[in-house]
Amino acid sequence: MDINQQALEIHKKFKGKIKTALRDIPTAETLKLYYTPGVGGVASYIAEHPAEMRNYTWTNNLVAVISDGSAVLGLGNIGPEGAMPVMEGKAMLFKHFAGIDSVPIVLNVHTPDEIVATVKAIAPSFGGINLEDIAAPYCFEIEERLKKELDIPVMHDDQHGTAIVALAGLMNATKITGKKLAECKIVLIGAGAAGVAIARLLHLYAKPQIIAVDTKGIVYKGRTDLTEEKLYLAGLSSQAYGGTLRDALKNADVVIGVSRGKLTADDIKVMAKNPIVFALANPTPEIMPDVAKAAGAAVIATGRSDFPNQINNALAFPGIFRGALDNRVSTITDHHKIAAAEVIASLVENPDAEHIVPSVFEPQLVPTIARVIV
Amino acid sequence: MDINQQALEIHKKFKGKIKTALRDIPTAETLKLYYTPGVGGVASYIAEHPAEMRNYTWTNNLVAVISDGSAVLGLGNIGPEGAMPVMEGKAMLFKHFAGIDSVPIVLNVHTPDEIVATVKAIAPSFGGINLEDIAAPYCFEIEERLKKELDIPVMHDDQHGTAIVALAGLMNATKITGKKLAECKIVLIGAGAAGVAIARLLHLYAKPQIIAVDTKGIVYKGRTDLTEEKLYLAGLSSQAYGGTLRDALKNADVVIGVSRGKLTADDIKVMAKNPIVFALANPTPEIMPDVAKAAGAAVIATGRSDFPNQINNALAFPGIFRGALDNRVSTITDHHKIAAAEVIASLVENPDAEHIVPSVFEPQLVPTIARVIV
Repeated sequence: MDINQQALEIHKKFKGKIKTALRDIPTAETLKLYYTPGVGGVASYIAEHPAEMRNYTWTNNLVAVISDGSAVLGLGNIGPEGAMPVMEGKAMLFKHFAGIDSVPIVLNVHTPDEIVATVKAIAPSFGGINLEDIAAPYCFEIEERLKKELDIPVMHDDQHGTAIVALAGLMNATKITGKKLAECKIVLIGAGAAGVAIARLLHLYAKPQIIAVDTKGIVYKGRTDLTEEKLYLAGLSSQAYGGTLRDALKNADVVIGVSRGKLTADDIKVMAKNPIVFALANPTPEIMPDVAKAAGAAVIATGRSDFPNQINNALAFPGIFRGALDNRVSTITDHHKIAAAEVIASLVENPDAEHIVPSVFEPQLVPTIARVIV
Repeated sequence: MDINQQALEIHKKFKGKIKTALRDIPTAETLKLYYTPGVGGVASYIAEHPAEMRNYTWTNNLVAVISDGSAVLGLGNIGPEGAMPVMEGKAMLFKHFAGIDSVPIVLNVHTPDEIVATVKAIAPSFGGINLEDIAAPYCFEIEERLKKELDIPVMHDDQHGTAIVALAGLMNATKITGKKLAECKIVLIGAGAAGVAIARLLHLYAKPQIIAVDTKGIVYKGRTDLTEEKLYLAGLSSQAYGGTLRDALKNADVVIGVSRGKLTADDIKVMAKNPIVFALANPTPEIMPDVAKAAGAAVIATGRSDFPNQINNALAFPGIFRGALDNRVSTITDHHKIAAAEVIASLVENPDAEHIVPSVFEPQLVPTIARVIV
């Protein structure tokens, strides 16, 4: 039975993945406190002191996972219903790894204005907002506006979760290959949500040379089809002319794939010696690890749990939000992202080619990240 | 310690009332099915068959409790934060009494257009929508539009939950006083959400004479300040002129208070013999039961759990939504409401003056109601 069929069966068997439960089982006596008339006193008190809501309601431990279903996994724009099992899965991870209550919200609206209006309208219901699987370039504007307009933490995980874990992985991978990140030439395949965020975070952390490649080839300033974000990417390299992925890869130290692009053994062979290959496309990496290794790759990572070095958002977001909720952090900053990457990398005591990031099941992962989100 | 202080303490102790939990604890193996890569197969399948979403996600058992905080309990317009503990309490009741997963959503928007747009935008996330504590007259328009535009059950509980339980109570109260509901003169104090819904349901069920009274006196056609709903109420009586509450009560068989109005012993004394008094204002009834009884009331009900005959929405909404979810009912109709009232009344085997409705802890309550929501 293939994995999709197994997944359908287990989802149907349990009728979903999450449920609600009660913090205290009410009796006839406590029901008078939890509901009318007693709850009226709590409602009045909070109405006068709105910031106190968190101390009296589940919002202190609650993150919404919100998507319009426009860029779900590698499946593209499959709409809110199709997105629901993925968002519910994320809510499951929040609970399982960080003890965070989480509610999946899928949206039937798709313009930035509508999405921003809807999320703002429901925002008082939550302690944090994890945006998920919203298509680029709208995702950038939506996250930016919501961060500015809301006083609870907002994070688009496809961007920053991926970027944090990729940076953590590179910190250890470059230790293994003996290269300084600041001196690396990095090729990025894919200029969507994850690609842009990875480039931003790498630039902020170490200012390496970064050449982005999209479906039309190298992203450079001479192109006339660039969005605001791709113009930013073009500015990160000294690349003055266009070219193919193969052109970009010549003498590159690192390639990071976050797209549906393909990498061949010949692509790897034009890179610098001992190249680092992060083939993060899901479920099918841009190049399979054995092929990359045979072509000379020194460190290989994918997004998959069945290969070594799984670069997965799930390493970052549970701890990030655990920290933001516990420490009442209202904005997740670049400083937080870099600090999170550093502690994720530090949890691998002796990195080697097959161990550059910890396992999602590492018990120290969430508390260690949470401590630096302050 | 007063009840408000006790309520604050127990809310603070447990940091709210609900939480999320997992239907199955994931292992490294099942995580591949619940999240990437396996969940991709579920997402693709649902994207092609959106109606199947319910069989694979928690939405099959999920009701949103949604409020803009504009008419919370007897507290009025206290805003979304103040409303949250009440909505979370409702979610607790859904879980405790009907096993329904329920998420409180409080809104930061307040016009009918904004509320309708927001609820429509998030509606794919839920299997049903319980509107709560939204001020009249907007609540009527909002519920009507959402019922029309969504394919999941939508119910404004302040209207219909209250109306169903009041009708159930009257069915048994009139048995005790030996009057036919159809022949009763009923005075309704309060022409807001609950008042209008009670009048509609009573009219539909038995066409009694109904005289509504608001803060300006009797609601009759000659008044120039009537909303659409109050015009409807005016049409339910043959009342051709205005007057006071006392005027309306003369020879009335039933008085139902759902307002902050007051009833005195002298008010009760002008009513017909053996009057039925439903003083449903919370937390302070329009008249205390002992006062009403001394003035001649034959059957007295309130909204409170510390007096006999608690007319509380909680008798109806858990079973209504249990039935709607289980039987895939997409619209809660007038027929459902009357059927629910009938079975609630029927659960009291031998009604007497102090037992006209069952207890919310009656184990047969939810399943019995659920069976008639088909």
